[in-house]
Amino acid sequence: MWNANLSCIPCGSDCGTNVAEVFGFVSSGRFQIEGPKYRQNHMASVENPASPTAEGRLAQEFAVPSHVEAERVRMAEFAERHGSAGRRVVLITSGGTKVPLESRTVRFLDNFSSGRRGASSAEYFLDSGYAVIFLHRHRSLYPYTRLYSGVNLLDTLQMEGEGSSGQVVVDQVALPNIRAVLKRYRAVKEAGLLLPVEFSTLSEYLHLLKAAAQALSSIGPKAMFYLAAAVSDFYIPASEMPEHKIQSSNGPLQISMKMVPKMLSPLVKDWAPQAFVISFKLETDATILLERARRALDTYRHQAVVANVLDTRRGYVVVVTSDTQAELALTEEDSHKGVEIEERIVGNLSAAHSNFIAQQG
Amino acid sequence: MWNANLSCIPCGSDCGTNVAEVFGFVSSGRFQIEGPKYRQNHMASVENPASPTAEGRLAQEFAVPSHVEAERVRMAEFAERHGSAGRRVVLITSGGTKVPLESRTVRFLDNFSSGRRGASSAEYFLDSGYAVIFLHRHRSLYPYTRLYSGVNLLDTLQMEGEGSSGQVVVDQVALPNIRAVLKRYRAVKEAGLLLPVEFSTLSEYLHLLKAAAQALSSIGPKAMFYLAAAVSDFYIPASEMPEHKIQSSNGPLQISMKMVPKMLSPLVKDWAPQAFVISFKLETDATILLERARRALDTYRHQAVVANVLDTRRGYVVVVTSDTQAELALTEEDSHKGVEIEERIVGNLSAAHSNFIAQQG
Repeated sequence: MWNANLSCIPCGSDCGTNVAEVFGFVSSGRFQIEGPKYRQNHMASVENPASPTAEGRLAQEFAVPSHVEAERVRMAEFAERHGSAGRRVVLITSGGTKVPLESRTVRFLDNFSSGRRGASSAEYFLDSGYAVIFLHRHRSLYPYTRLYSGVNLLDTLQMEGEGSSGQVVVDQVALPNIRAVLKRYRAVKEAGLLLPVEFSTLSEYLHLLKAAAQALSSIGPKAMFYLAAAVSDFYIPASEMPEHKIQSSNGPLQISMKMVPKMLSPLVKDWAPQAFVISFKLETDATILLERARRALDTYRHQAVVANVLDTRRGYVVVVTSDTQAELALTEEDSHKGVEIEERIVGNLSAAHSNFIAQQG
Repeated sequence: MWNANLSCIPCGSDCGTNVAEVFGFVSSGRFQIEGPKYRQNHMASVENPASPTAEGRLAQEFAVPSHVEAERVRMAEFAERHGSAGRRVVLITSGGTKVPLESRTVRFLDNFSSGRRGASSAEYFLDSGYAVIFLHRHRSLYPYTRLYSGVNLLDTLQMEGEGSSGQVVVDQVALPNIRAVLKRYRAVKEAGLLLPVEFSTLSEYLHLLKAAAQALSSIGPKAMFYLAAAVSDFYIPASEMPEHKIQSSNGPLQISMKMVPKMLSPLVKDWAPQAFVISFKLETDATILLERARRALDTYRHQAVVANVLDTRRGYVVVVTSDTQAELALTEEDSHKGVEIEERIVGNLSAAHSNFIAQQG
């Protein structure tokens, strides 16, 4: 969860070249996709050894979803409205990306993420006065409703009256604190402070991220990117994918996946060069975490990495910048009281964002 | 969705041998898992060419989740209670399986499935007098609540009164038909007719399916298996899996996956030989569908295959048995009225189940 691989694992300068040399294919036993397109691409890379840029690869290898332009307009209007009201705007990415293995997709690769980090962070950013664009995986956790995600709706309702008429009332024990939560949700909604945008596939995510960066460029340093989504590092290009469901009767499955272009690079350099950019780094191995976080900062030159380990992510993170390293941790007492680590993360980053804006001005 | 690959794609008699010869590994660039265990397994398969049975492979290659025995007891009590009341019991499997690529899982392979087919079928089986064990993927669609799955809970509630006291009431326009649905949900729950059991990973699914089959064996032909889950055909054995998150900095990803043992074989032959067993076959290519369905019936000798194509699955299926082939289709008028194809499927199969029981008696 909460791992913007796209932003966190530096590819090193040779990555583009590696990728150009190896094209993804899926094979199941005798079935193997190495058609004319494979050879064409492969030969092209031999003839022209220059590494394509991440932005170039995005345009060439990932089809633009039809709704991206409309979403870009919605996001730009949102950013402009709040920017001109003097409000900061944060783009939060949240949830995992779906990477299809077949064109008519039955199977896909996914990244573990419920979207909890992104959804709760959105609430704390709203409490801190930000307007929030919430770019999230379809059906991942959502601000405020996430508090009741484990509950079956029908177990929380009670009927009054008989037959088909009468009220249906919420059991406020089953939905604790529901009046306060509902009030806050309504206030945010009525003030137009939260703009939800959905993705499912990696391709949708990447194009919507670019659209968001373009939409937020008008408000300069007042924009924050909080890249908490768990983005796949690997994918199979559409041209290398089988159309139909892979048949298990063809035997064991061999999958070869290309590396996803690292969008943090054009985001920081070209799309939103004035913005305050935060990436997330999730590892399962604590011993390599900080080194990887530092390497990401060195590579992309953005403002901070929130580093965390899978097993302890709900109680401990390190916010790493080029010259600081802040450990944020919950005590047992904090956890007991229901304090969430995202409150600390957002507090730390919104203060840093204030300094950043002051320095730019 | 609704594809019990485990039951639908026949492996042919040589499958076990194929599988024994090729062991799964994951490699990312320079990193490749071909440790002692790989060689040991591989050599073992050379020394002993006999194909292990599906049941043997389940025991050897998939760790038993700790809660399986408790779930088996719950299911056995449920089956016994309803069986002795003269009721039929259907085990419905629903949703997709998660196949981890790392031991401390960040990435996994998944199968497309919202769980809609299983959840709506459960309602029609309950309406037809069955007791239902609902073996479903965690957070997939659930009977009755599935009707409101696209709705944000907080958009459907209204506060009465001020401050922290007063009722919270459902907007019955936002949750259409809620009183009737709630009444039916409550009646089913109070009568104890629906037993939910959850899985996430493939391993959990396989062991819980075996436990369910054992639990239902006491009621003989009164048990139906309705295997609508979208079960992965491929997996990586725990012994071949990297412990930590695969690093994208190591380059493109090569994945080699083993075939999942086909559990339909021991289910029909050994675990529940008296039961009425239905598998599902989902294809994206309509031209191979019926041939695959027939091949599954020939291989496993169970009672029926529900064959469907990804694009048309909500309006058209074919129920294939050894000597019949029934097309079930919704007209435009049906769809307009909100008739669901699962009502027809359940009607067809519960009638066939009655004949089956009569023949056994």
